[in-house]
Amino acid sequence: MPEQVYNFYAGPAVLPKQVLKQAALDIVDFNQSGMGIIEISHRSQAFTAVIQETEALIRELLGVPGHYKVLFLQGGASSQFFMVPMNLLQKDRVASYLNTGVWSNKAIREARLFGQVEVPYSSEATGFTRVPQHGEYTVNPKSEYLYFVSNNTVYGTQFHAMPETDAMLVADMSSDILSRPVDVSRFGLIYAGAQKNIGPAGVTLVIIREDLLERVSESVPTMLQYRTHAAADSLFNTPPVFSVYGVGQVMRWLRDQGGVAAMDRLSKQRSSLLYEVIDSTDFYRGHAEKASRSAMNVTFTLPTRELEEKFLRETTEQGFIGLKGHRLLGGFRASLYNAFPLEGVAKLAEFMQAFARKN
Amino acid sequence: MPEQVYNFYAGPAVLPKQVLKQAALDIVDFNQSGMGIIEISHRSQAFTAVIQETEALIRELLGVPGHYKVLFLQGGASSQFFMVPMNLLQKDRVASYLNTGVWSNKAIREARLFGQVEVPYSSEATGFTRVPQHGEYTVNPKSEYLYFVSNNTVYGTQFHAMPETDAMLVADMSSDILSRPVDVSRFGLIYAGAQKNIGPAGVTLVIIREDLLERVSESVPTMLQYRTHAAADSLFNTPPVFSVYGVGQVMRWLRDQGGVAAMDRLSKQRSSLLYEVIDSTDFYRGHAEKASRSAMNVTFTLPTRELEEKFLRETTEQGFIGLKGHRLLGGFRASLYNAFPLEGVAKLAEFMQAFARKN
Repeated sequence: MPEQVYNFYAGPAVLPKQVLKQAALDIVDFNQSGMGIIEISHRSQAFTAVIQETEALIRELLGVPGHYKVLFLQGGASSQFFMVPMNLLQKDRVASYLNTGVWSNKAIREARLFGQVEVPYSSEATGFTRVPQHGEYTVNPKSEYLYFVSNNTVYGTQFHAMPETDAMLVADMSSDILSRPVDVSRFGLIYAGAQKNIGPAGVTLVIIREDLLERVSESVPTMLQYRTHAAADSLFNTPPVFSVYGVGQVMRWLRDQGGVAAMDRLSKQRSSLLYEVIDSTDFYRGHAEKASRSAMNVTFTLPTRELEEKFLRETTEQGFIGLKGHRLLGGFRASLYNAFPLEGVAKLAEFMQAFARKN
Repeated sequence: MPEQVYNFYAGPAVLPKQVLKQAALDIVDFNQSGMGIIEISHRSQAFTAVIQETEALIRELLGVPGHYKVLFLQGGASSQFFMVPMNLLQKDRVASYLNTGVWSNKAIREARLFGQVEVPYSSEATGFTRVPQHGEYTVNPKSEYLYFVSNNTVYGTQFHAMPETDAMLVADMSSDILSRPVDVSRFGLIYAGAQKNIGPAGVTLVIIREDLLERVSESVPTMLQYRTHAAADSLFNTPPVFSVYGVGQVMRWLRDQGGVAAMDRLSKQRSSLLYEVIDSTDFYRGHAEKASRSAMNVTFTLPTRELEEKFLRETTEQGFIGLKGHRLLGGFRASLYNAFPLEGVAKLAEFMQAFARKN
């Protein structure tokens, strides 16, 4: 294994080194209490302070308006596929979903258990190489909400402008939240699994407009109602203590780096380095259409399977880890989340240029 | 803060020191990979090995038969309150629940959303001071299952023999799993939140008999069907990586300590030390009836509120942390899970004797 490793995993993914070092201390002895962060009661003052600070930082960094609740839930983004319609869609009502990949597809399937689902746009027939641009679809005005996935990890596509519609927006931002500014007030609900830009796996961030909390039916289990967790400040039951703590540490780091504006600049720098290599030769072929390219996940293929095997072998030897593409798509994927060091992307870009020249 | 702290929290609770020290290393660099345990893909070989070893250790330690699945889920034990009936109870069928405290009460409320619920025994009227003994209740033979909570953290009561019934048993063992031997083959399903005897909060262990996996209706969301997770070996979506890793470390430690038989001996030693003090004077009054006393949570009160305040202040000064009773019950609770050091209980027993003499 080379001395320096660059972690291109799509999630769980690279986290800031100083966050890991702090966690290593806090796991043995938190705040000089003689107890580790994972040994203290979630109802203790020490942990209450952790979860409150974490929420406050997210509110500050994302500019979350006061009439939105910030929740820390369990079950992953995959549980939001059903929790969103379970809480927001009545049996005889309509919701619209933009289908831009495997995750929106799964969300559509779950939503159909609860109400009518319309899909005004899908890029499935062309291999999910793009997301729609403004004007390419029409949303049924009766829709309770328009659901979309802001960044599609598998295909490397990303919405560069939020959909323009009168319908309330609901977004799965699992893989690009906090990587760029977002106007939260345009959304009814935003959610994101932690393990890409936010922190350790095991917690899901949900930002929900307060007036939506009461839309849920009484027959929905207590734990599956957003309002249960909103009323208890995410402490209705034992939260995933370490994951929440980890998110808090990442949020501190993110603030110290300059916040979302700084992340936005950095993520454009990082991804441009790779897209420039891809565009400068016929050797690499990007999967996504240019206008839909993701700043978080850069997906590409090589001319032959043999060359792909060689590329995988040599990049791994060089310490570039996790570049293998999603099993649904093949090829390669470089995931460049907030904590990914710029010099690692520069080194990969350099390697890719050299590899193309030699092969 | 005194040099040595003893952590009596009811959960999240004390974990083995060597587990915390190992975690502090692995969080920065796991297996000399140059990446921390929370930075690696859940589909990587390294993490697959972690989850497989964790499952194998649980199977070995609890003697889980081959026709049971061992699952690592999210959402806490509170999510099992609804997942159990959602998967195992049809609308027109009956399930029986023994009501021995706040957690069974919550489980009963959720089960009523799905089918008919009968409660053949409840100790609610007498303040949940006991669990039923054999012969004190009759289970409707049409019951799909008999549900009970093996140990009641809030009240400090515990079943010392499993219910004798022809009905399939389902148990919430969140607070005493792996503290004593259990005949898994008598159960249809056992579940336990991790944060007491098993590891860090954020993962819930579910042990389910394979033939029950297909009982669920197609209309149940994918993530809420046990069979989804069984078919994917708990990797259907991103698992709570750190919590699963932590459980694995605790299981290694538990095996090295002598397994469940050793934990059983130790837990009886620990709790006896405190019950002997309680019984040796009129100063302390145990909440639980003797035959129902828990080896995990020892609950007691003092003669007056003033003495209780003094006791709380002095124990805290001495480094005995987390003794305050659950808010529903007041008084004190000493939680003595597997990782709790025996000498800490001996010191508390000594302090309690001295305090009773002086006051």
